[in-house]
Amino acid sequence: MAMKMIDGGVCAAQGFKAGGIHVGVKSHKTDKKDVALIVSEVECSAAAVFTKNVVKAAPIHVDKKHLENGKAWAIIANSGNANACAPKGEENAIRMCQAAAKAIGCDPSDVLVSSTGVIGQTLNVGVIEDGMAELYGSIEHSAAGSLAAAHAIMTTDTVKKEAAVETVIGGKTVHMGGIAKGSGMIHPNMGTMLCFLTTDCAISPAMIKTALLETVNVSFNRISVDGDTSTNDSCIVLANGLAGNAEITEKGEDYEAFLLALQTLCIQLAREMASDGEGAKHLITCSVSGAADEDQAYTIAKSVIGSTLTKCAIFGADANWGRVLCAMGYSGAEFDPDKVDVHFVSAAGDILVCSQGRGVDFDEIKAKKILTEHDIEINITMGEGEASCTCWGCDMTYDYVKINGDYRT
Amino acid sequence: MAMKMIDGGVCAAQGFKAGGIHVGVKSHKTDKKDVALIVSEVECSAAAVFTKNVVKAAPIHVDKKHLENGKAWAIIANSGNANACAPKGEENAIRMCQAAAKAIGCDPSDVLVSSTGVIGQTLNVGVIEDGMAELYGSIEHSAAGSLAAAHAIMTTDTVKKEAAVETVIGGKTVHMGGIAKGSGMIHPNMGTMLCFLTTDCAISPAMIKTALLETVNVSFNRISVDGDTSTNDSCIVLANGLAGNAEITEKGEDYEAFLLALQTLCIQLAREMASDGEGAKHLITCSVSGAADEDQAYTIAKSVIGSTLTKCAIFGADANWGRVLCAMGYSGAEFDPDKVDVHFVSAAGDILVCSQGRGVDFDEIKAKKILTEHDIEINITMGEGEASCTCWGCDMTYDYVKINGDYRT
Repeated sequence: MAMKMIDGGVCAAQGFKAGGIHVGVKSHKTDKKDVALIVSEVECSAAAVFTKNVVKAAPIHVDKKHLENGKAWAIIANSGNANACAPKGEENAIRMCQAAAKAIGCDPSDVLVSSTGVIGQTLNVGVIEDGMAELYGSIEHSAAGSLAAAHAIMTTDTVKKEAAVETVIGGKTVHMGGIAKGSGMIHPNMGTMLCFLTTDCAISPAMIKTALLETVNVSFNRISVDGDTSTNDSCIVLANGLAGNAEITEKGEDYEAFLLALQTLCIQLAREMASDGEGAKHLITCSVSGAADEDQAYTIAKSVIGSTLTKCAIFGADANWGRVLCAMGYSGAEFDPDKVDVHFVSAAGDILVCSQGRGVDFDEIKAKKILTEHDIEINITMGEGEASCTCWGCDMTYDYVKINGDYRT
Repeated sequence: MAMKMIDGGVCAAQGFKAGGIHVGVKSHKTDKKDVALIVSEVECSAAAVFTKNVVKAAPIHVDKKHLENGKAWAIIANSGNANACAPKGEENAIRMCQAAAKAIGCDPSDVLVSSTGVIGQTLNVGVIEDGMAELYGSIEHSAAGSLAAAHAIMTTDTVKKEAAVETVIGGKTVHMGGIAKGSGMIHPNMGTMLCFLTTDCAISPAMIKTALLETVNVSFNRISVDGDTSTNDSCIVLANGLAGNAEITEKGEDYEAFLLALQTLCIQLAREMASDGEGAKHLITCSVSGAADEDQAYTIAKSVIGSTLTKCAIFGADANWGRVLCAMGYSGAEFDPDKVDVHFVSAAGDILVCSQGRGVDFDEIKAKKILTEHDIEINITMGEGEASCTCWGCDMTYDYVKINGDYRT
């Protein structure tokens, strides 16, 4: 199968337009974009997964209703205000859908809505309504349109997250792309901060939901920035069918090709999210292999990338593998520590630091050099079986504390 | 009942001597104390709880064997090396017991051993053996002896943790005291980093174990510094019976008096541990009331004090209560967010920031003033029932990152 990464983000697929502008949800002192719009020229199969947090933002409640028929035309999203625990939450989320629907000429229930930003403050929905004509006028089917939308959903992100793939399904060339935002409060549980995916593949709402669940579990649910599962995590897919392939309505070869494309895309976006964690200087990849089963491998890898002490050690380029063993031990997984090997790996080399659960003499200078690279791998072998899992995180830095010591003010 | 806080730490109870010296487990470039010894003049009932981490330090395996008969005479402990995942771990832990037993004149199996410090490096047990005569010569039944032992178990702690109480049990005056160390890798699960408690109360090994389990659950298991459950958590109690009360062998009035004293002592030490969390500038107390049951209250309070984002907000004196709601929501507890009220409280005042799950207008200047105090309370009312729980933590600071970016080197 000829799958390749391409440009274009959410506009890589046929029939999708996107854009983003500044309307003033974020302070007027900035001109940062704060509202994004993604519109398909035809109706889409749609599916989404949302945060498992008991405290859910208002847009999530609205989206669940709007997704009951498995169809949608557009996504409207703002940054600067999470519309969670906020007065008039659902009312304002619905007003965002109504404003977008009026501009597009569809029903408000065909629009999905997302918000990200500060929790607990009333959303200034008026500025979104006032800016809707300009926003709708700005959308285009181009890489620039996707880029504007990607920028408009950023909060403390330092780089935009965009990716797209091209593949062949049912003999037709299919495109799939996405934009995402992450940075803080990132420890997704069946959803992620915000991720919007579009494709021109023809696929039924039921199968797109199945594929999304299979994908989120191996991508966004495998990253952590700070252990805080957000109130707003949302991952939405729109599929408009313009590629002209025979609609995917059951599992089979076409579904597998779709799933592979979706997973490739989401793993790429998840890695970008981890790499751009608030204040992060390193992307940390923890690969656990030789595990008894995938659950064990996942539990251990997620615990290691979530360990505050391990994250600080990587920030300090300190090969303090004891913290890795410690995080494995409190993960909740049962295993025999005496069979564990740990390697630190990067472009600068590969070093064994722990063999059979015990420290080994190693070259501290080489270790330091390895840990000075941006991308660090912690490779763990369990000696228990054949299962494996990879999770992604980032280091803990002064800047994380600085960003979150005065985020709201 | 006339219970009062007294001085003397682990030497507050009759018949206990303690001391601590520098022998060189920590670098010879420092003269910081690194070995502590606590000895009873008569045999003690003894009990302990240890970490639930699957990766357990060698001394824990040794102590479990030595506690099979419920009796002990002494505790030997070092800082500077955790003797966890280290070559010759059990062998070296046993050699520490043997050296202490030889000096004391008891059996090695009557000595309990603990270690704290870096994971994964071979313990230099030779310097402990060589220093044993000096260490044994230094122990005394005095506040100074307890203080020396308290200092000798410190790693990144900035202040020593000591407390003692006096109470009346079975008509006799009973003393109980303890020393502890905490600071980093603090998220105890049925034990804590290191805590040694002594009492002259007469109590059977079975009842002391029962009381210890009841106590750890309401003290050390309710604090968190960084979410990392250590490999070395140990809480040990020695009871030598010299108070002359009728031995406590079953539940009843005397047991309740003993339990109250033990809980008072351990909650005090746990608070000190949270307050001196690595880099901490604030002690954070989260009190949840009006909960459906104690499990719900505990799960929520522990999640709030463990939230990295909430910890950063307190560091920044930012009344960002949305992060509190978020941490409640991902705690795993089920509840209705629309019934939740949140207050921030300190010596500088009390302010309502969230009512019925929604933000309320509040005086930001007053809130800032409240959050500038050292001791901060986050008071949450659930509106679901009558249960409550209090947990303790600390803020997340640049210094935490600094300390843990180069702890090992």
